[in-house]
Amino acid sequence: MNSRDTLITELNVLENFDPLVPEEYQDSEYLMLGNLSPLVQSTVITRLNKRPKLIAMDTMNFWMDIAMESLMKVISKVDVLMINEEEVRQLTGLKALPLAAAAVHTMGPKTVVIKKGEHGAIMFEDGKTFFSPAMPLEKVVDPTGAGDTFAGGFIGYLARLGDTSWEAKKQAVVVGSVLASFTCEDFGTKRLQTLEESEWHSRMRQLRAMVKFRSIRG
Amino acid sequence: MNSRDTLITELNVLENFDPLVPEEYQDSEYLMLGNLSPLVQSTVITRLNKRPKLIAMDTMNFWMDIAMESLMKVISKVDVLMINEEEVRQLTGLKALPLAAAAVHTMGPKTVVIKKGEHGAIMFEDGKTFFSPAMPLEKVVDPTGAGDTFAGGFIGYLARLGDTSWEAKKQAVVVGSVLASFTCEDFGTKRLQTLEESEWHSRMRQLRAMVKFRSIRG
Repeated sequence: MNSRDTLITELNVLENFDPLVPEEYQDSEYLMLGNLSPLVQSTVITRLNKRPKLIAMDTMNFWMDIAMESLMKVISKVDVLMINEEEVRQLTGLKALPLAAAAVHTMGPKTVVIKKGEHGAIMFEDGKTFFSPAMPLEKVVDPTGAGDTFAGGFIGYLARLGDTSWEAKKQAVVVGSVLASFTCEDFGTKRLQTLEESEWHSRMRQLRAMVKFRSIRG
Repeated sequence: MNSRDTLITELNVLENFDPLVPEEYQDSEYLMLGNLSPLVQSTVITRLNKRPKLIAMDTMNFWMDIAMESLMKVISKVDVLMINEEEVRQLTGLKALPLAAAAVHTMGPKTVVIKKGEHGAIMFEDGKTFFSPAMPLEKVVDPTGAGDTFAGGFIGYLARLGDTSWEAKKQAVVVGSVLASFTCEDFGTKRLQTLEESEWHSRMRQLRAMVKFRSIRG
């Protein structure tokens, strides 16, 4: 696709979805830009009267293929980039995740969360690394929406705490992973609709126990 | 391959490598059966005067394809099965790792360690689960031997401690992961040959910090 075609595609997307931010959302301190056209994502940012405390965005290979320029522009404006493993490799041309994350930092985002599906998620910020496994499930009905659940859980937890520290973000990655595990257990949002706070808290404790080990002697 | 051909193949392997256990190894309390013909693995066990405190074994799809019967026999005699993700699925016919591990338990091994390469390792024992990520590396020169390093690190650490508890095994999985990360950084055993205790201890601490998060409030 040449750049004229690309622009037309992008304009079509924008024409079909020109995001208006309702007045009551103008004061949002936490903004999650879901995986949409980077032009739509950028427009949401510019239509807010003041910059949120934290902007996170999700993206995918499709936008890298057709709208790289707009994508790089919106990436430069956000605090947290959420992206899956293969896609961060495509975006940066680097296979090793610590190097790919370092390359993303130079594009703008201070924080990079790399989603590895059933293999968990790894977060990089300011030379620090955090890893959360995915919850090992006995039954996966449909993983569709797991990535969106992860993103929503991540930013929702930070917004609830009102905290954007590294410690809070680590917990937020685990919250995202745990909530996403419920999404996989049924179709659509079915499992999430009946989810009790006690259920995901219990899974948070399980996940915590699953990675805990004593420091070695000597 | 019919069972006669299979037997011939196995006998050929055995003929080429008939393992004699030297007298000074007869008192070994920790036995690691590397990934070899299950007939060779079984022979090692039967040639020991007394059963070691802990027997671990590694295997691969090749033996499932040509020597399933002998493989099941040796699996029934060991305490720890180490196997990679795809292979435990082939062995059990089950995709979900918790279910695959449960199926392996019924074959004999009390402990199942599933190796996921760059995605870490997960261990199941007696209803408990432990997960260790792999160390995120900036440079992977050659992962050949990483699985063997993992296995050697696992059993070597337990033998050093003289402890086969769940707590010790969790540390052993991390030791295996950390040592395997060094193997990947150069060809063959090159990196391991110059490895200092302080270097892998430092990486153990890094890995511990990488999975640590505070329990959630509320």
